[in-house]
Parts: sequence; structure tokens; C-alpha cells
Amino acid sequence: MAEGDRYVVGVDFGTLSGRAVVVRTRDGAEVGSAVSEFRNGVIERELPATGERLPPSWALQDPDDYREVLRSAVPAAVEAAGVDPASIVGIGTDFTASTPLPVRRDGVPLCELEFRDRPHAYVKLWKHHAAQAQAERINATAEARGESWLPRYGGRISSEWQFAKALQVLEEDPEIYAAADRWIEAADWIVWQLCGEETRNECTAGYKGIFQDGEYPSEAYLAALDERFAGFVADKLDHPLAPLGGRAGDLTAEAAEWTGLPEGIAVSVGNVDAHVTAPAAQAIEPGQMVAIMGTSSCHVMNHESFADVPGMCGAVLGGITPGLWGFEAGQSGVGDIFGWLVDHFVGASYHEEAAERGLSLHEHLSRQAEEQAVGEHGLVALDWESGNRSVLVDHELSGLIVGLTLGTRPPDVYRALVEATAFGARTIIETLEAAEVPVKDIVVAGGLLKNRFVMQIYADVLRRPLHLIGSEQGPALGSAIHAAVAAGAHPDIHAASAAMGRQERDAYAPDGAAADAYDDLYADYRRLHDHFGRGGDDVMHRLRRPRSADSLVES
Amino acid sequence: MAEGDRYVVGVDFGTLSGRAVVVRTRDGAEVGSAVSEFRNGVIERELPATGERLPPSWALQDPDDYREVLRSAVPAAVEAAGVDPASIVGIGTDFTASTPLPVRRDGVPLCELEFRDRPHAYVKLWKHHAAQAQAERINATAEARGESWLPRYGGRISSEWQFAKALQVLEEDPEIYAAADRWIEAADWIVWQLCGEETRNECTAGYKGIFQDGEYPSEAYLAALDERFAGFVADKLDHPLAPLGGRAGDLTAEAAEWTGLPEGIAVSVGNVDAHVTAPAAQAIEPGQMVAIMGTSSCHVMNHESFADVPGMCGAVLGGITPGLWGFEAGQSGVGDIFGWLVDHFVGASYHEEAAERGLSLHEHLSRQAEEQAVGEHGLVALDWESGNRSVLVDHELSGLIVGLTLGTRPPDVYRALVEATAFGARTIIETLEAAEVPVKDIVVAGGLLKNRFVMQIYADVLRRPLHLIGSEQGPALGSAIHAAVAAGAHPDIHAASAAMGRQERDAYAPDGAAADAYDDLYADYRRLHDHFGRGGDDVMHRLRRPRSADSLVES
Repeated sequence: MAEGDRYVVGVDFGTLSGRAVVVRTRDGAEVGSAVSEFRNGVIERELPATGERLPPSWALQDPDDYREVLRSAVPAAVEAAGVDPASIVGIGTDFTASTPLPVRRDGVPLCELEFRDRPHAYVKLWKHHAAQAQAERINATAEARGESWLPRYGGRISSEWQFAKALQVLEEDPEIYAAADRWIEAADWIVWQLCGEETRNECTAGYKGIFQDGEYPSEAYLAALDERFAGFVADKLDHPLAPLGGRAGDLTAEAAEWTGLPEGIAVSVGNVDAHVTAPAAQAIEPGQMVAIMGTSSCHVMNHESFADVPGMCGAVLGGITPGLWGFEAGQSGVGDIFGWLVDHFVGASYHEEAAERGLSLHEHLSRQAEEQAVGEHGLVALDWESGNRSVLVDHELSGLIVGLTLGTRPPDVYRALVEATAFGARTIIETLEAAEVPVKDIVVAGGLLKNRFVMQIYADVLRRPLHLIGSEQGPALGSAIHAAVAAGAHPDIHAASAAMGRQERDAYAPDGAAADAYDDLYADYRRLHDHFGRGGDDVMHRLRRPRSADSLVES
Repeated sequence: MAEGDRYVVGVDFGTLSGRAVVVRTRDGAEVGSAVSEFRNGVIERELPATGERLPPSWALQDPDDYREVLRSAVPAAVEAAGVDPASIVGIGTDFTASTPLPVRRDGVPLCELEFRDRPHAYVKLWKHHAAQAQAERINATAEARGESWLPRYGGRISSEWQFAKALQVLEEDPEIYAAADRWIEAADWIVWQLCGEETRNECTAGYKGIFQDGEYPSEAYLAALDERFAGFVADKLDHPLAPLGGRAGDLTAEAAEWTGLPEGIAVSVGNVDAHVTAPAAQAIEPGQMVAIMGTSSCHVMNHESFADVPGMCGAVLGGITPGLWGFEAGQSGVGDIFGWLVDHFVGASYHEEAAERGLSLHEHLSRQAEEQAVGEHGLVALDWESGNRSVLVDHELSGLIVGLTLGTRPPDVYRALVEATAFGARTIIETLEAAEVPVKDIVVAGGLLKNRFVMQIYADVLRRPLHLIGSEQGPALGSAIHAAVAAGAHPDIHAASAAMGRQERDAYAPDGAAADAYDDLYADYRRLHDHFGRGGDDVMHRLRRPRSADSLVES
């Protein structure tokens, strides 16, 4: 540690835990980190306070678990780093989204007041999917009224987002709705806990809060959804938006006590985990796509101007860095799909062989699958086991495998599923480029970047070199970069990213012959994609509905 | 055993063994049986005589293994029956087909002469699939010349049949071809061994030998395939055809010694295992379909007249019983497909659960699957893992599953595959009926009739009651019925079937609500069937070909 070095803390709030990383502002060196698991994890089955059983598709969290990350992981990371707390000049955070909660005017969550026994008083985690009915009305009403913001979201607002979740609260527990002075993303709430002031960031407001062209949806539109919802924006949401990398405020005495950090240091504005990864990966110039690949995949990329790209999750000005349009696309299932096969559809003999060789089942299947020539397995699959987020934006689509023979074995299907997700990524990239949003670089982040087998297939299918983020803590590093900007250690996110981000260039190169063969297979994928995803055969939707009232008897 | 009872012996030659059953002519009682496994089984990897490695897709047999059934299983069955051999009045046989062999004019197989070291001198078992190139030329040439017999076989002659296999011998070992005085089905060869005279039966000649309207393919057509093949029919095949149930001759002294049966008793003409099952199941009236369901399924049914039914394996006058048109259709994979899933795609936890409950994996999955409502799994599959024999006649088609989600589990896929094969059977039945060949009754034979789960799904999907054959040895009982006719114990196959066959009526009844729901799912199946099987998307064919020369490098 050089004399005069300064540090920032980045804190990444994930689905099950929060991770704090201490980072040197000069070069982004990660000098210490610590994790705090959420005590209540994801609250899906029953409310801990009462034991009340929750309906299906609910997913809540307890906001005090987030504070606990500040109280335990942050000081632990500082201790692990061995740096003098006085050398720490800022703290930044990122969060899952949309993960909103109802709070009192002073920021106290309703679930910490007299509403502790009311499920709707808690945080609704991103994967709370019980507001589907509300989302459908939100979309139908927007379409009927021709709302101008709808195309910015691929024509479809998700049940995961702020408005659907708030409307569910209004309809199912109007007392909680009324008691909520503010309806706020956890991304902004945690910042409020740190600096003592409500702020709202452009990223979550844009991607999850339907904020476009300087405004939220109109009162008239909200009233069309439900008369009682007309004031939702004005009463509970509206607040000046802060640009990413901005300083939300100063660390309060209370938060300084929790974290062990100096009171008064810079707190940067909130952010979303995927988007904050871009500066960590040094991929924030227009055309540099970051693909965060894990159980699902998220693709974020800056571009100079708005373009109407079908099937994006969102296009938001300043959504990744100020002044540029941030495009977000996604694949609902990636690693999840491989895991599903491995967990349920791999016969006992493979388990034994893997054990004998000291390999995980994933490794064993990968090794067998990577020996194959392209197309040798004779399969092609659609990667929709978890629906399709981009570019079809249809969560009632489902997976398909074609080409099965009595000779087909699990490594064949494993490879076909990996290829299918790569074809899905290629579809997203080609859709961007068809809308004149060129994709110049692909930088991979997320857990799958360590999987050589998956990475090489992606390089071949995409016919491009793959660059990798150079950090194992992409979001936390990104948050630290934001903190460094907020603290004035760098003039803006671009400068901070250049100094503190890390990227490994050309980690995987496409193989020409394999890429040629994949062009062919990809044509088959696209034909199936359009046939089943664009109405050629609507069987996937029919399969999601009961066959008939009578069919619910057991055969 | 009543005074004066008479008996016959039926011998069923399968793929791996031959089974002899002693049957009372009066009522069809099966009084004793025995099995003889073929010592050489299926010769697929190397020729036992020399150790020579065989190419892929070869499947040979040693004809002396068939004689061994006569020498061991027949006397063992008689001994098990405890009947006086003098009360046995006839012997009948059935065989797999097409299973032809080259023999000398006196019936001695070439592989028992100086050609013991030549693979082409052996029996080519039905599942010898190495004559695909020849079959393709046979079909292309027939189509180009507009041969009138082609429509009788669904427009396609199989590589499994007599002509393709003979042409392969000519092209790959012309010396063997030249040395073969006769090219004969094992069904007829075994009869030759019993009665000392060459006979040819109408069933194998019609279904496997392209004998239609009183003649084989013309010399001009054969010459168009290969000049040297012009005389194939005249030199090696042609012989008067004998009707089913006819008397081929009398048991020779030599065969009497092998079998322990009285010299001079009736030997019935040869037959095919599937077709001879029809009289055993009491299902030989027009409109009575026998579905022999096992690893694959075969459907045979009589009708009064010829009808041009697309995609039949064959329509042959006298092919099941004299005077009626016998239609044959088939599904290349049924139990095979369920077995493939169970063997390779069922995760370890299911193996453990099945073991804990003392169930086979098939039983365990069936029990879980049968608790579901129709359509609950949200899947629909095409049952083409082993290609499609009827009604598309395309062995390059492959399996498809649609509707997969992260919640899909092996019992769901198991049920969907069972349903897919039932939909395949329904397609065959509807195709017959669309061509004005009504299917009045369905009688199930074969190993799957014991599977309650599968049977109920078939009853619901077909929306018909299922009747079952009342014997566990359908083909052998059928052969015994033929023997009884040949011996004069009954005037014809119909009378013998009535007296000696057995059928359990209405073993499974369709459930109305389930059938309604399946109508819906079947509509989805048919849409997929036509899209992938009739050129809407030719992806299944493309998946069978190498992607490109370059693609054979490893990626």
C-alpha cells in the first residue's frame, strides 16, 4: 500500500447476499472483500413474522438484511483489506432490480412499523412474479392508449417492475398502499440509509420505472388502470433523478457507525447490478456490449442515440453512463437451463463416471460434448425453458429440442442447449445491428466466463472474439468505480473505468470452420425461433393453458 | 387331456430365440412350451467363423441356430406338455421378416458350404440396415419408371427388404450372388427344412418381395438397377406361392428325428410373426386391427378390397388370410423410446426413489406420470426417435419435444413420449379411415399390453375400447392355428381362429373427459407432424447430414 493511496468501497446487493469490496482508486486493485448472507434469504413460502403462508410466485425480502450487509460485510472487507479506514473516500452500491418497497416519508420501511404482519409491507424482490395480472392490464391499457413509452420496453412492461408490483399492493392491500408515503427501489433505499436523504437514480427509474423523455406515465393513464392509482407517480414516486456516478450525499454518522467508515465520505447514487458491471469491464463506449452470463444473461450496451430495437428490455438515456443511451436485452435462462438438464435428466451411469473421474457432472458432460464436431449430435434446440426475454419478450414460450434419436445421449443435449443459448445471444446481437445499433465488442462477465467449453461455443456461434471482464466481482467493482467518481477521485465514469476497470482482450477466438458450420445450424434455429415465437405455430401458448375444464380430471 | 384330443406345434422364430408351443386343436389350450436361444444371436460385430470385423449396420444370423430350435425347443415343449407325440398332427412356424439367405438348389445355405468365411453367405436379419444405398436406387428407379407396385408400399421400398439386400450381395460379393441358386426368406427356408421341399408363402412375397398383382418386378426394371440383376427374379426367386394356412408338405424323416414329432404330419406354409398373430387374437375379420406393441409397433388388418392408403408398409392380397387384403402399418419406435428415456435421461434421484420403493424405473415414472391430468405437463412430442415407418415412411425423421420448462421432470417427458406414440397410432388409424378402410376394433398384442398406464393412455387418445389378445405367445399360437388348418383339424384360418384364438374384450375403456382433452393435444401433434414430416420445415433431414465438409473438424 503506497503512501497516499485512497480507497473506495463497492457493495453489490444480490439475491441471497451482499458483497463488499475495498478497491484502490488509482488502479482498481481489489484489496479486500467480505460477504454477508441475507438472514431471511428470499421469503417465498411464509412470512417469518407470522408464519402466514404466501401465495405462489411471491418473493419478498426483509430490508434489515440489507442494513446487515453494511454492518457486517463492509467492516469485514475493510479489515480484510488491511487499509486505514481514514483512506476510504467513498462508498457505492448496486442492487437487483426491480426490487421496490413501501416506506414512510422518513424512509422507514412499512414492514418495520405496525405492518410487520402484512406481506405487502415487505420488499418485493425482482423475482416476485405474482403481479402478472396487473402487468397484463398495464400493457393492454398502454397499447389501447398508444402510450409513447411502450416501444422503449420491447412493447411490454414486465410483471417484475415497479408499476405492476405497486398496483398489486393497491388492489390486494389498499391500507398498505395508502400508508406508503413513498414507493422506492431498494437500490435507492439503501443509498437513503447511507446518506440520510431520498435520491432516485436514472437507471432504475428508466429501466424499471417507465421514466422516459423526462416523465413518468401520465395521471390519465394511471387513472385508466385504476381510479385510485391516478396519484401514484405524484404522491409516491416523483423525485428529481440523479445521474449515475453522481454523489447522492455524505455518509451519515449512523451509517458511519454501522460501516466503520469515516462520516461524511461520498455516497454515490444507486444503480443496477448488470449496468454497473459495464464500467468494471471497461465496456462503456458505444458498441461495447457487456454480456453478464450466469443463470440468466443480461446484455447492456451504450449507443449514441435512441433506436427502436424490437424486444429490448429497455432503452434508457443515461441508463449506463450519463449522456449515452443504454440498451438492455436479456435471456431469461442460460446457466439455469444447463443446470436443469444436469439436475434432472442425466442418467445414473454419468453420475458414476463423473465420480470416478473426480469431475462434477457439468465438467464430465462438457468434456464429452466438447469432443464432438459441430452438428455431430444432430440436434437443435430453442433456449426458452424459462421463456424468452429478448427479442420476443414472451415468458409463455417454452423449450424445444428437435433431432432426437435413440442414439442421443445427455452430452449431446447438453451441447445443444449451450449452443441454443449462444444462438439466442446471436439473435439479440443481430436484432440490434438490424436496427443500426452496431455491436463492436463483446465483453463477457458473470459466472459462466470461467467455462471454457461454453465460451468457445459462444465465440464460434457469434463468429467474434470474446473479451472477458478482468474481475471476479464485476458489480462490486463497478459500484466502487461509481464511488470513486462521486468522491472526485476521477472526473467521470469513463475516466474511472479506464483507470479502475479491467478487461482481458481476445480471451477466445472463433474457429473459422466451426463458425461456418454454426451459420448453418443457426439458420435452422432462426427458422424454429420465428415459427414458434412469432405465430407460425402457437402451440407453446396452447400448452400453457389447461386443455379444457374437463381435462383437469385425472385421466 | 381328453381322449382323442389332438395337438399342433407352433414355432415362433424371433430375433434372439425361437419358441415352441404345443396347442390343443379343439380349443387352443397351450399345454407346453420351450425356448431355444440362438447360439450366435445377432451377428453384428464380427463373423464367428473368422473373427472378421463387420461394417456398421450389419446384422447376420447363422441358419443352424434355427434348426437348433427344431432339435431342442420343439421336443422340450412336447415333453413339458406331457402329451403323446402321436397325438400331434401338425407343425407351423412364423419368422421375422425380411430375413433372407442365399442357398443352393437343395436348400443348403451357402454359409454351410465353402463360403463359411464370407459374410454375404449368411442370413441377413430384418434389422441389417447396410443396404440403404441399394434401397435408394430401388426407389429412385421405380419412381422414375412409374412402377405400379410402388404405391402398395407407401411409395418406398425399405432397405430391410429382399431386393435391397440381394442387390447388396450382388454389388459387394458377386461370387456369392452367382453361387446362390435361390434367395429365400428364412420363413420359407425353415419350412423347407421341415418338409424337404421349397415353398414360398404369399405373405413374405407380398410384404417383403414386391409381389403384386401376380408378379414380381419386371426384368426390365431389374436391369435398370444393374444389368447383372436382370435375372434375379427368374433365377433365384420365382416359385409358385402358397396361401397362408396351406399345407407346405409332410414332415420328413430327418425333421421327425430332430423334433421327436411323427414323420409325415402336416407342415404349414411360412408366415411373418406379426401377421400370424392376427388369428391368435381372433382379429381377422375386415376392420379388426391387431396392434402388436413392443419395442416397435406393427399394425395388421384385413379389408375386403385394395385401397390406396398412404404410408402403409404394404397392402397384400392374402397377406394375413386368403382372399382378403392385408394392410400392414408400423411405428418404428414405441417401447424403445420409453426405454431410451429411462436408460439415459432419468436423474439419479429417481433411481434412488425407485429402489427405495422396490419399483423398476419404468414403474416409478409410470406411477408419477399417471397421477397427472391430461396436458398438465405442458408438453407435446413427436415419436420419431427411430424414424417414422407409417404414415410418413421416412427413417430420417427424428424426435421432437416442445413445451419444456425449468419445471419439466422425467415423469412429464415419460408421459409425453407415451402419448406421442399413441398419437402416432391414431394417425395411422385416421389415415386408414380417410382412405375408406374403416377400423372397427383394436386388439392389442405384444409386451406392452401388460402396461396399464400405457394402455389407458392409448384408449383415451384413440377414444376407443382396447381389446387384448388372450395369449402371451401370440405368434406361436398363430403358427399353431395355421398348423391346425394345414392338418385339416379346422377347415380354414377363420374357423381355426374362432376355436383356438383368444381375445379379452373391452379390457380398457376410454375416459370421455380425457379423450376430449386429448383431441386438443392431438391437433397440436398433427400440426407438428405435418410441419416437420411433410416439408414445412425440413430441419430433421438437414440435421442428419454433416453441416459441411469443414464442419467435421472439432470445434
